[in-house]
Amino acid sequence: MNLSSLQYARRFDQVSGSAIREIFKVIAQPGMISFAGGNPSLAALPDEKAAELSSLVLKENGKAILQYGATEGYPALIESLKAWIPAHLGFEAPAVLPVTGSTQAMDLLCKAMINPGDRIIVEDPSFLGNLQCMKLYEAELVPVDSQEDGLDVCHLERLIQAQKSKMIYTIPTFQNPTGKTLSLAKRKIIAELACQYGVLVAEDDPYRDLRYRGEALPPIKSFDSEGWVVYFGSFSKIISPGLRVGFMAGDAGILRKCTIGKQSSDVHTANLTQAIVDQFLRQDLLPDHIARISRDYAAQCDAMLEELARFPAGVSYTRPEGGLFIWVELPERLNAKDLLQQAIARKVAFVPGTHFYCGGEHENTLRLNFSASTLDQIHEGMTILRKLIEESL
Amino acid sequence: MNLSSLQYARRFDQVSGSAIREIFKVIAQPGMISFAGGNPSLAALPDEKAAELSSLVLKENGKAILQYGATEGYPALIESLKAWIPAHLGFEAPAVLPVTGSTQAMDLLCKAMINPGDRIIVEDPSFLGNLQCMKLYEAELVPVDSQEDGLDVCHLERLIQAQKSKMIYTIPTFQNPTGKTLSLAKRKIIAELACQYGVLVAEDDPYRDLRYRGEALPPIKSFDSEGWVVYFGSFSKIISPGLRVGFMAGDAGILRKCTIGKQSSDVHTANLTQAIVDQFLRQDLLPDHIARISRDYAAQCDAMLEELARFPAGVSYTRPEGGLFIWVELPERLNAKDLLQQAIARKVAFVPGTHFYCGGEHENTLRLNFSASTLDQIHEGMTILRKLIEESL
Repeated sequence: MNLSSLQYARRFDQVSGSAIREIFKVIAQPGMISFAGGNPSLAALPDEKAAELSSLVLKENGKAILQYGATEGYPALIESLKAWIPAHLGFEAPAVLPVTGSTQAMDLLCKAMINPGDRIIVEDPSFLGNLQCMKLYEAELVPVDSQEDGLDVCHLERLIQAQKSKMIYTIPTFQNPTGKTLSLAKRKIIAELACQYGVLVAEDDPYRDLRYRGEALPPIKSFDSEGWVVYFGSFSKIISPGLRVGFMAGDAGILRKCTIGKQSSDVHTANLTQAIVDQFLRQDLLPDHIARISRDYAAQCDAMLEELARFPAGVSYTRPEGGLFIWVELPERLNAKDLLQQAIARKVAFVPGTHFYCGGEHENTLRLNFSASTLDQIHEGMTILRKLIEESL
Repeated sequence: MNLSSLQYARRFDQVSGSAIREIFKVIAQPGMISFAGGNPSLAALPDEKAAELSSLVLKENGKAILQYGATEGYPALIESLKAWIPAHLGFEAPAVLPVTGSTQAMDLLCKAMINPGDRIIVEDPSFLGNLQCMKLYEAELVPVDSQEDGLDVCHLERLIQAQKSKMIYTIPTFQNPTGKTLSLAKRKIIAELACQYGVLVAEDDPYRDLRYRGEALPPIKSFDSEGWVVYFGSFSKIISPGLRVGFMAGDAGILRKCTIGKQSSDVHTANLTQAIVDQFLRQDLLPDHIARISRDYAAQCDAMLEELARFPAGVSYTRPEGGLFIWVELPERLNAKDLLQQAIARKVAFVPGTHFYCGGEHENTLRLNFSASTLDQIHEGMTILRKLIEESL
């Protein structure tokens, strides 16, 4: 019998793979100016320090690092996180679980909590990797309206009241893809609504340390008295995405279920990469490193905003206080997918915004990343985009 | 509202966490002689070489290693695997996917293929980590009888004929937990049955290189003409489990679905650990390393068999040609869980065999690991076990 008779699992019926990761392949051509990814700049990646720390931990603790570890995490990293989280994030975590990148946090929380058909309220647009994750658990995604200062909490409450929802998924700080930040008042309200209605909040906060202006805001988790908020932390944007180390922080019972789920996902996160991240925390290397990369990213963000100010009337865009992304809305009659084809021909890439919406459409939107390009590339690439748009109008 | 109202996902209804990983915590006490885990010996873990290779790859290719990688795997490792698999395993793989330990291979294949209620035929007893994985996908596990030379292929065919099955899960070489090896004739038959009836085979083969006597046998995959067999390879037993690097090899369409699943599991396996494993293959370090650790493990296996020969009549056990485990059957009236309690009090640990069976029971069986103990520990621990059993009879 040949394989053509093979049936894949139903969870794939609505999922065809991450559009971003497919675009990545197209744009890997030499000479491409890419505003498409969410990659740190090469200059921000601490390769010399990582080489030094990798040698250090393997020399000091090599046998334990190469041996099986606990699903619960590398002990030194757990210790460091338990000190770092209250000091740096401003909340006490009853439990913490290191994971293989914060993408795994989403996967494990869905594994622990979501039955097919369960409703998850999501920002619209939102991070499509995690939208795909929720779809693979056959959740029903319910979009909540977005405002300048983050999701619309009145709409959120109406959605919760209208029909039982299991979870709210939000990226509160410098959101992907919009760059918007949830206001302090709304953070408190979301924590209160979660507790009042018994809805989990998955607070995905990988960008919070990349702040270029304004004041840091406390996580939603810091207003959570009963444990309904599960916080996802990531070191991908402030150390390295290639190491695949993030963490979950929250209620011990929920994290215990996630730990059991993780036993059969990957047994444990690689000890070596956990040990390297531990050294960054233990040696207190992050403040200087974050300050340095934030200076560079701020200049890149400013350069992109400066170019956007030259775009024709009718093009609007967000002015993020940090993170990696600017969100652009073109006049309605323009189509960002068409623009992408023209742009790729001129060696510039971005991601059409439609991919980030639960229901697609919004063909006139696009996401721009500024972290992975030099100032020269930003000026050159944005000039090309501006001219293409001017020609289309 | 407090969290006591929280409902976990139904997939956890039948799953309470890996018994082995719970036992691991109990036996972490100092002075314990542990025959419980499946750990490599500390002497077998190449910490100096790993430190050297880690520095090398970070110096040569640090920026790419720290940056986001492709879900499809680290390019150098894919290249090495595509050369190593035919040379070392004797089959051509249309596609290969590096994964975060071969446990993730099981998870991704289930994610791609299994709907709740789908039948998976499993050896009984089998590796409980992967049994848990299949249970979390709400598969119906169908046990197939075991014989001295591996699973009973006549029983297997009757099971397939009786009711549609989606997959067969087998560990053909030095099986966990029994140490048994599937014969050459049966390997061919399983490949033929898979193709004849359109049933997938998950061939989990982490122990094959740890052979102490006898001739290596070709994988089931090498007899697969149509692509029904998906091969899981692991570097956990021959390099390091803590690095979490394994691979899947098989049909390109199936591995494409697994890759899409992996996008939202962990985006990609850590580049650094993939690059270290790549260097082991690229520099051809495995043959000498495997020869060295196999010499040690062979002596440890022999020492354990030598002690077992002194056990009272009525105790039977397997005589594996390789791998990490010996399987013991006590007289029926003895209970291995009770024996474990007594043994732990005398600082010896193992895993009761009941945990490895789909339906539990078989309370008189136990699994012994010899790789993680020194010869002295094996003699001392086995003497304690022998005396406890003699006292119980």
